[in-house]
Amino acid sequence: MSKVGIIGLGHVGSDIAYTLCTKGQVDELVLIDKNKEKVMAEYLELTDSMMMTEVKTTILLHEYRHLNDADIIVISVGSQSIDNEDRVSELNDNKQAVKEIIPQVVSSGFKGIFLVITNPCDVITTLVHRESGFPAYRVIGTGTSLDTNRMKRIVGEKLGVSGQSINGYVLGEHGESQFVAWSTVMVGTQKLLDVVSLSEDELEEMKEATRLGGWEIHQRKSWTSYGIASTTSRLIQSILKDEKKIYPLSIYQEKDNIHIGYPAVLGKRGIVKALSLDLTKKEDLLFRQSVEQVTQYLEQ
Amino acid sequence: MSKVGIIGLGHVGSDIAYTLCTKGQVDELVLIDKNKEKVMAEYLELTDSMMMTEVKTTILLHEYRHLNDADIIVISVGSQSIDNEDRVSELNDNKQAVKEIIPQVVSSGFKGIFLVITNPCDVITTLVHRESGFPAYRVIGTGTSLDTNRMKRIVGEKLGVSGQSINGYVLGEHGESQFVAWSTVMVGTQKLLDVVSLSEDELEEMKEATRLGGWEIHQRKSWTSYGIASTTSRLIQSILKDEKKIYPLSIYQEKDNIHIGYPAVLGKRGIVKALSLDLTKKEDLLFRQSVEQVTQYLEQ
Amino acid sequence: MSKVGIIGLGHVGSDIAYTLCTKGQVDELVLIDKNKEKVMAEYLELTDSMMMTEVKTTILLHEYRHLNDADIIVISVGSQSIDNEDRVSELNDNKQAVKEIIPQVVSSGFKGIFLVITNPCDVITTLVHRESGFPAYRVIGTGTSLDTNRMKRIVGEKLGVSGQSINGYVLGEHGESQFVAWSTVMVGTQKLLDVVSLSEDELEEMKEATRLGGWEIHQRKSWTSYGIASTTSRLIQSILKDEKKIYPLSIYQEKDNIHIGYPAVLGKRGIVKALSLDLTKKEDLLFRQSVEQVTQYLEQ
Amino acid sequence: MSKVGIIGLGHVGSDIAYTLCTKGQVDELVLIDKNKEKVMAEYLELTDSMMMTEVKTTILLHEYRHLNDADIIVISVGSQSIDNEDRVSELNDNKQAVKEIIPQVVSSGFKGIFLVITNPCDVITTLVHRESGFPAYRVIGTGTSLDTNRMKRIVGEKLGVSGQSINGYVLGEHGESQFVAWSTVMVGTQKLLDVVSLSEDELEEMKEATRLGGWEIHQRKSWTSYGIASTTSRLIQSILKDEKKIYPLSIYQEKDNIHIGYPAVLGKRGIVKALSLDLTKKEDLLFRQSVEQVTQYLEQ
Repeated sequence: MSKVGIIGLGHVGSDIAYTLCTKGQVDELVLIDKNKEKVMAEYLELTDSMMMTEVKTTILLHEYRHLNDADIIVISVGSQSIDNEDRVSELNDNKQAVKEIIPQVVSSGFKGIFLVITNPCDVITTLVHRESGFPAYRVIGTGTSLDTNRMKRIVGEKLGVSGQSINGYVLGEHGESQFVAWSTVMVGTQKLLDVVSLSEDELEEMKEATRLGGWEIHQRKSWTSYGIASTTSRLIQSILKDEKKIYPLSIYQEKDNIHIGYPAVLGKRGIVKALSLDLTKKEDLLFRQSVEQVTQYLEQ
Repeated sequence: MSKVGIIGLGHVGSDIAYTLCTKGQVDELVLIDKNKEKVMAEYLELTDSMMMTEVKTTILLHEYRHLNDADIIVISVGSQSIDNEDRVSELNDNKQAVKEIIPQVVSSGFKGIFLVITNPCDVITTLVHRESGFPAYRVIGTGTSLDTNRMKRIVGEKLGVSGQSINGYVLGEHGESQFVAWSTVMVGTQKLLDVVSLSEDELEEMKEATRLGGWEIHQRKSWTSYGIASTTSRLIQSILKDEKKIYPLSIYQEKDNIHIGYPAVLGKRGIVKALSLDLTKKEDLLFRQSVEQVTQYLEQ
Repeated sequence: MSKVGIIGLGHVGSDIAYTLCTKGQVDELVLIDKNKEKVMAEYLELTDSMMMTEVKTTILLHEYRHLNDADIIVISVGSQSIDNEDRVSELNDNKQAVKEIIPQVVSSGFKGIFLVITNPCDVITTLVHRESGFPAYRVIGTGTSLDTNRMKRIVGEKLGVSGQSINGYVLGEHGESQFVAWSTVMVGTQKLLDVVSLSEDELEEMKEATRLGGWEIHQRKSWTSYGIASTTSRLIQSILKDEKKIYPLSIYQEKDNIHIGYPAVLGKRGIVKALSLDLTKKEDLLFRQSVEQVTQYLEQ
Repeated sequence: MSKVGIIGLGHVGSDIAYTLCTKGQVDELVLIDKNKEKVMAEYLELTDSMMMTEVKTTILLHEYRHLNDADIIVISVGSQSIDNEDRVSELNDNKQAVKEIIPQVVSSGFKGIFLVITNPCDVITTLVHRESGFPAYRVIGTGTSLDTNRMKRIVGEKLGVSGQSINGYVLGEHGESQFVAWSTVMVGTQKLLDVVSLSEDELEEMKEATRLGGWEIHQRKSWTSYGIASTTSRLIQSILKDEKKIYPLSIYQEKDNIHIGYPAVLGKRGIVKALSLDLTKKEDLLFRQSVEQVTQYLEQ
C-alpha cells in the first residue's frame, strides 16, 4: 500500500491532503502538525469529503512512528510569506522547524523520499538533506516546478497553444533569482526562439510574469495553495508509480553542495538522474548567481 | 458544454471551484465575488492547478452576463460563522447579499438551477426562491446533505461498515434543530434499529456527533470547506448528468412555503420529485419544530 | 504497492486489465494465460493505452512466482458460454483448469484473496476454495453482484430513479436458479413493495429481465465483458482500500459447504462478515433450491 | 452538454465507447452500426458498466438524426485488417461504407468534427472530407497519433525515461510508408540525436518496432483496440475542452489535396493550425513518398 506523510498542515499541506484524497492517489496519509487541533480538524474535513467519492484514503494522525514505512514525506511546515521583509525571520523560523522535525522523522525508521515545499525551498531542502543524512537522491524540493508550469502557461497563452504542449524550464532558486532558460523552451518539438520572433522586452515580460506568479496570487488572497497542491500531487504520483518523468526540481548539485532547481528524472527511487542541459553562457551565469543566492541564505 | 457559476469565493466557494477543476467535472466556470482581487487570485490559482492535470476547465470572471447560459449557480456568499452570537448578524448580512445578487442573476437571463450553500442554508434558499421568482424545483439548498454524510460515517464506524453502505437521512434545518430520522437509517437493506441493539443514549450521542460535526471542525480551524465542497461537486454532477439520485436537500415544502431538508430525486430539471417518507410520530414532530425554527428565522 | 494478478485473458480478463489500467487503480498487474501470445498482445495493448493517461500500472507477465506478494488474484479462465447445451462441457473444462492453476498459485506463496469470475461462478469459487485450502473469507466469487446491478437498473428505470439509489439483492446462484429477494429491495430508504404497487407479473418480468440480462448481451455479441469488468474493478478497489462496503458476492455458506450469492462486508481481509438477512419464507425456499442446484453441479 | 457519435461498433468503436463511459468524458453518446443487435448489446453492456461508477453517460441508439447536435463523430466502421492481402478488399469495403454513411450524417444537420479511425486511415479521412464537403479543419484522422505514442514508449524504454517525457512525431501514412522524424524527437527539451549516440541500425530498429507495433498485437489477438481507444478518448477530450494541444494527426495538406499524418494544434474548432516543421531533406523525401502512397490508394 502507498503511504504519504504530510508534516505541516497550513493551507498548502491541507490542500495537498485534500487533493490526494479527492484523486484517491494514496492508500494511507499521515498528518502531522504541532497544532494538533488543526490536524484533527483536517482529519474530520477529509473524512467528510470522502463520503461521496469512489475513492478512499486511510488517515493516521500525529505520530512520527506512523512514518516508519511511508513512501514519501511532504515537508510543508512554516508560513508561506513572500514579503521581503519577512524573509529573514521566515528563514530562521523554518530552519528551526526543520531541525526539530527531521531527527524525529529519522528516528521513526523512515526510508522513503523527502519532498520539501517549505520556503525558501532550496535552502530548506538543502537543510533537510544535511539534517537527515539521507542520500541526496532521496531529498527533493518542489523548487521551480510550479514556476515552470506558470512559464508554460504564459508562453502557451501568448501562442494560442496549450501550456501542456510547451516544454522548457525555469531554473535556479524558487525565489527572486530564478530565471527562464529560454534556450530550453519548446513549442511541441521546436525551439520557441526559432519559431516565434520575440523581443528581449517580451521575453523579460514573460519571465517577470512567471517570477511574480505566486506574488500576484499572494497579495490578493494572502497565501497560495491550489497550484502547489496540484503540482505536488502530480510529483507524488510520479514517485509512487515510478513514472520516470522529467521535472525541474530542487535537486542536489554536488559541485556546490546545495539543492537548487534543475531538471531530473523522477521515479520510485527519488531522483533517478539529473539531466545535463546545454545552456547558453548567459543562462550559465544566471544559474551561478542563483546558486550563490541560495548559498548565501544558507550561511545566514 | 456544461457551465457552472459560483457566487461567493470564500473558503467554500473557492474549494468548490478547485474540486470541480481537479475532477474536470465542468467545461466552464464563472467566478463572481464582490472582492474582485480574490476572484483574480483564485483564477490564477486554478489555472496553475490545471497545468499538470488531464482535465481542463475554462474560467470566466466577474460578469453576471456570463451566467446567462449557465446550468447551475452555486450561492456561497457570506461568512460561514457557526457561533451563536454571530448568527443574527450573519443572517442579516447574508439576507442582504442575496437581495443584491439575485436580481442581477435573473437579469442575466439565467434559466438554470440555484444551488444554495450560504448559511442559514434553509432560510437563504427560501429567500433565493422568493427573490428569483423561479419555480421551486429549480431552487435547491445543500441542506442536510453533508449532515447526512456525517451521520452515515458515524453509524458506519460504529458498525465496522463503510458509511457508503449506510443509508438514511438527517432531516429538517441545516442547523440546531436538525434531527436524525432513525426510522430511515439502513445498514445495507436492513433497518439499523432492527439489526443492532442501540440504547437511547447511543442514538442521542450519534445524533449529537452528527449535529456538531461542522462545529468540531470550525472551532479547530475557523472554517469548514472540504466536506461541503466535495458534497457540492457531487450534487453538481448529479444535476449535469441527470443522474436522478436521491439526496436529502433543502427543498420546497408547499404546505409551509419554505425550503427545508428532505429527501428528493435530483436531476437535470432540478428537483424531479420529493420522496414521501413514512416517519414516526416523534420524527414528524421534530420535523414540525424544525420547520418552525426556519420560519422564525425568516420572519426575523 | 498494490498488486493484482489476472489468470485468464479472454474478453473478461483483458477488459478487467484495461479497466484497472484506465482508472489507475493498481500499481502492478500480473497477467497469466496459457496462450502466451495473447498475454503478450494484451501487454502491448495496455502499454499503448497508458501513453496518454495520467496514471500508470506496471505489468508483469506469465510467471506464477510474480503472484507471490499479490493482494488479489482474479480467476477469469474459461469460455463464458451461456448456452445450456455447452454448460456441462464448460463446467468440466473450467473445473479442470482450476485444478491445474490453483496448486501453482498456492506454490507461489500467494497469501491474498481469490476473486473468481469463471462460470459457473459459485461452483468454481467453491472449487477454488477446496483446492487452495485457503480460509473461506479469502475466496470470493463475483456471484450475483452483476445481476444485482442489473436488477437495480431495471427497478430504477421503472421508477424514474437512478439505479444507484435502489438497493437490494439478487441472491443464490449466478445462473438459472438465482432470484430477486424483493423483500430486500429498497428505493432510497423505503421498501419498494411498500411505496409502489407492483403486480406479481411485473415483479416476475423484472426478475426475468435481470436473470436474462447477460443472455440478452451474449446472444447479440457472443460474449459479455464490460459489465463484469467494471463490477470487478469496483470490488478490487473495495478490497485494496479496505472499504468495508456491502455487496452480494459468492461467499461461503458453512452449513452447505459451498459458495453462493449472499451479501457480505468486503474489505482488505476479504469477507469481513456476511449479513444475516430476514428473508421471506418464499425467498428462503428459493435460496435453498439454488443451494441445491450449485451442490448438484459440484457433484457432477 | 457534450455529445459524441460513434459509427461502427467493432472492437475499436466499442472500446472507445467503454473508455468514454468509464472516464465519464462525455454527456451523451450516440451508437450506430448496421448490425443493430451489436449496438443493442453494447448499449446493455455499457449501461451495466456504469452501475457502480461515479460517472454517467446517456446513450442513444441507431438514429442518424441524434447526430444533429453532436460535437464529434468517430468513424470506426470496417474491419481492422492489417494483412497485406486483405488491404485492397478492405479499402474497397471501407470506401463503400463511407460513401453510404457520410451523406446520412450530413443530412442529419451535423455541424461538428469528424474523427476518423477506419483504415487505411488517411485514405478514409480524405474520403470523408470529400464526401462531406466539410471544411478541412473539421475532418481529422487519428493518423500516426498511436504510432507516435509507440515511438515515444520505445525511445523512453531505451533511455530509462517515461515515454511521456519523450516528444517527437511519426509522420506520413498510418501504414507501411510512415516514418519516425528523428529530427523532431526530444528527450525533455533536448534533441535525442544530440544527447544519445545511436547507430543507424538502432534508429532503424526503433522505427521498425514502431511501425510494426500494431502488427505485433494483431497477429497475437486478431485485432487491436485498447491503444487506439485510449488515444481516441484523449483526442476527444482535447476537442471538447478546447485544449489546443499539439498532436500528430491525419490533417489536410492543401498542396496534395489529401489528409496525412502531420502535427497540428487541436481544439474545439477542430484543427486550429498545422505546425510547420523544419524537417531534414531525408525526412522531406520520406514524407513525399508517403503522400504518394496515400494518393495512390485513393486513386485505386
